[in-house]
Amino acid sequence: MSHELTIYRGTFIHLPRLEGGLTTSKLKLIRNRGALWVSTLDGRIKGFDWDAHDEGSFRELMRVNGWVDVDAQTNGNSDHVKVKIVTSNEERNEFFFPGFIDTHIHAPQYPNAGLFGSTTLLDWLETYTFPVESGFGKTNTTPSNKPEDAPPSALRVYDQVIARTLSHGTTCASYFATVHVPATNALAALAHKRGQRAFIGRVCMDNPSFCPDYYCDASAEESLESTKSTIEYIHTLDPKGVLIKPIVTPRFAPTCSRPSLKALGSLAASYTPPLHIQTHISENENEVALVKELFPECSSYAGVYDNYNLLTERTILAHAVHLTPEERQLIQKQKAKVSHCPASNSALGSGIALVRTMLQEGITVGLGTDVSGGYSSSILEAVRQACLSSRLVGHTTKYVNENPQPDGSEKLSVEESLYLATRGGADVVCMGDDLGGFDNGMIFDAQLIQLGGVCEDVVSLDVSGNGVSGDELSVRGGPVGNVDIFGTETWEEKIQKWVWSGDDRNVKAVWVAGRMVHERV
Amino acid sequence: MSHELTIYRGTFIHLPRLEGGLTTSKLKLIRNRGALWVSTLDGRIKGFDWDAHDEGSFRELMRVNGWVDVDAQTNGNSDHVKVKIVTSNEERNEFFFPGFIDTHIHAPQYPNAGLFGSTTLLDWLETYTFPVESGFGKTNTTPSNKPEDAPPSALRVYDQVIARTLSHGTTCASYFATVHVPATNALAALAHKRGQRAFIGRVCMDNPSFCPDYYCDASAEESLESTKSTIEYIHTLDPKGVLIKPIVTPRFAPTCSRPSLKALGSLAASYTPPLHIQTHISENENEVALVKELFPECSSYAGVYDNYNLLTERTILAHAVHLTPEERQLIQKQKAKVSHCPASNSALGSGIALVRTMLQEGITVGLGTDVSGGYSSSILEAVRQACLSSRLVGHTTKYVNENPQPDGSEKLSVEESLYLATRGGADVVCMGDDLGGFDNGMIFDAQLIQLGGVCEDVVSLDVSGNGVSGDELSVRGGPVGNVDIFGTETWEEKIQKWVWSGDDRNVKAVWVAGRMVHERV
Repeated sequence: MSHELTIYRGTFIHLPRLEGGLTTSKLKLIRNRGALWVSTLDGRIKGFDWDAHDEGSFRELMRVNGWVDVDAQTNGNSDHVKVKIVTSNEERNEFFFPGFIDTHIHAPQYPNAGLFGSTTLLDWLETYTFPVESGFGKTNTTPSNKPEDAPPSALRVYDQVIARTLSHGTTCASYFATVHVPATNALAALAHKRGQRAFIGRVCMDNPSFCPDYYCDASAEESLESTKSTIEYIHTLDPKGVLIKPIVTPRFAPTCSRPSLKALGSLAASYTPPLHIQTHISENENEVALVKELFPECSSYAGVYDNYNLLTERTILAHAVHLTPEERQLIQKQKAKVSHCPASNSALGSGIALVRTMLQEGITVGLGTDVSGGYSSSILEAVRQACLSSRLVGHTTKYVNENPQPDGSEKLSVEESLYLATRGGADVVCMGDDLGGFDNGMIFDAQLIQLGGVCEDVVSLDVSGNGVSGDELSVRGGPVGNVDIFGTETWEEKIQKWVWSGDDRNVKAVWVAGRMVHERV
Repeated sequence: MSHELTIYRGTFIHLPRLEGGLTTSKLKLIRNRGALWVSTLDGRIKGFDWDAHDEGSFRELMRVNGWVDVDAQTNGNSDHVKVKIVTSNEERNEFFFPGFIDTHIHAPQYPNAGLFGSTTLLDWLETYTFPVESGFGKTNTTPSNKPEDAPPSALRVYDQVIARTLSHGTTCASYFATVHVPATNALAALAHKRGQRAFIGRVCMDNPSFCPDYYCDASAEESLESTKSTIEYIHTLDPKGVLIKPIVTPRFAPTCSRPSLKALGSLAASYTPPLHIQTHISENENEVALVKELFPECSSYAGVYDNYNLLTERTILAHAVHLTPEERQLIQKQKAKVSHCPASNSALGSGIALVRTMLQEGITVGLGTDVSGGYSSSILEAVRQACLSSRLVGHTTKYVNENPQPDGSEKLSVEESLYLATRGGADVVCMGDDLGGFDNGMIFDAQLIQLGGVCEDVVSLDVSGNGVSGDELSVRGGPVGNVDIFGTETWEEKIQKWVWSGDDRNVKAVWVAGRMVHERV
């Protein structure tokens, strides 16, 4: 039986929306308990009642609005509005939280997650990345835009990476695909099918000096035409861009010819509204030196992108570890966005981005997993790594050069990292009005987190030496994953425990635009 | 029916034993496939046959040795030796790996795992640590050495931390308890009951200037007597120290009076062999400055411990982040050991220890979780963090001061981090002849790792817009946790995937001295 609304009941936790961005350091989580309702038609939040926490006031809310539970065995009344009710379990420490937004992830590299050895960026690309990406299709064959022309192994990887990121609570992701049109379109189709909100970028790389001969666009023209082909496919798949949008994706300056950079900047600007753009910037010191050498006419790495109209308010710049103060100023002026990828930056030894500095200068920052420079497809892991690396940045030469006396303000709190993972990410994809929180009118992209019950209290001290057996061999009590609740924690401390010890086991269900897209079974 | 031997069949992976310690950077994992047998009597490895991999040669091995499977329905023959057979499943990517050794963990702080805010060491102790530890008993009450006099909440926490660490594959842990004798003895009793190998240390802290008034030994004498009481209890519980051993535990120099430090050094030396010792050193720069101020007569922080005969070859020094070259030299000379706690050092912003430098100078290093300065009770997480922080250390001022041109040699490989977690840890607790690998004669402390099967290949591209439902909502295929195997990986790459994406879900079973102490259900 269809229903007009879904009523979510229980505990809702999110971050406040900061119009000026995350410039304060005293950010607090907001917790509301009651009911929130979402339209089936458009997946948007139509209202909430934080007084309807107990059973009586909830029934009154239902009565006043003329709502009837679609799952209850009652006689239909044509005056009534059918609603579905989803309830979080307080005793199991469940709560609704905004879905995570992954602002930078390479879908085809997923099979390489965890494989990087001791390489750094440029040799990692050659050793691990280009070989795996080249397996997603053939270049220089008859042009096709059909997803079914992608290799079966590509479909398998793309389906798995979408399933995995959803299982980690990622409701929206900005994907780099490969150069191949069929496989890129298949990624769009699979995300659409599974119901994940996604930006899909065919990777542009046409500079033979910095691309391997087996994996390279044949020319700037081909790069442009192939990109247009994926944009058209996506615009046919999802004409209104409800879930899936194209994103113009020059890999990074060294792999793109000047004509290609120029054409892609113009291409993005030719649409109304202009298309989103994503690329990499200043991840690694050797890369920065290389760009300086390749583009002597530009003032800086950021200046290269600006020069080709690729530094727009709809541009996502991944990494931004080694920006100069002047580059940060330019990025802020152009309102381009930054995807902070701490797990990747640590794994590849790239360094630690000056996140606090960028935030205080008014740059919009979100989090990215950067699979597979990053080893994990979980944004919760990115939240942890953002906290950890911010606690180490004060020990780095780069930070100390700008701040001779670190005072601890460089550290990101759990709340701030969660802000970057939700509200921040929403701003990075220019959807801050629609995503990232439970504000009235926003789209319900959310996850139901379950920490589990309180650990049992009865422990036997029988030390007869016979040891334990059977059930006793396992961890006892209520936890569903690694989060142990002892019953003495405040609710804020439970969130901290979730951030530091949680994983996909704690993600009980995930919704995108009010549609359930993942359920833990 | 009892059995004399257990035969473990399948794949065994471990690190080679390096007598000179981990000074090479070309460490490789060893993989053997076949059978290995362990005596029920003493839990030691009595032999192996790496030719007995296929069914035929295994049956021949059984026949030649006169072994019969205790679980098979055969008639007994008194000439035959009854054996139990445990087999790893190749298709599920299962393998045996040595148990992890956690060389530094604070059991009572486990309820605080993940709670530390943005504090650093000294304020973290006051805000989080001392309050939780003080709840493990009352000071200044009638002396008792009975575990049952510990508060029920203490038993619950201790039982959970043992269960959790076992579930992560930790077969041996060196625990800090609290100042309280009954609860400390309960920790020993519970570890003994669950079958975890453990060093149990009652914490000594008698300096009222640096201990809170609500949580402090009354005097150096009381500190000594209480310590003796736990030592006696443990020697009664496990007279031969098969599983549980006492360890003398001055918290760290600032919390201990000179008479206490002196008495504890003498106490450890008064036993044959001398008792193990554990403490903290040079975790944080403010702490280093404080020690310098408090002990102006000593040459250095390490010098304080050396001065009181606490820097022995049976001493575990936790952290060692800010040691001077002279201190490292002293530690190496005295053969004291270092517990590297990377998750904690990042979480509390302490800095990054110069692990490669210490290793190359001949210092023995193992890994510690340092719960709850460390947020995770998993040594696999410590392995990851050791790799990650070693990839960042080249960006730190401290490292660059000693090595103006980092050349990448500071990075720890996955293999090296796993060495620290097994062989290294065994050397840190002076059991390198007994633990850390599958060498003949060693004690079988091991874990059975299960990565799961290869991801399924069939993906539908049906983009009718009806989306997925039911089973399809979940991650498909063979994985048991977050490790995805696509079938193209080498076995070494599977190990890397385990290290970077694995968790307790991949720990199928754990044995200590051949006794199963954890099984994933």
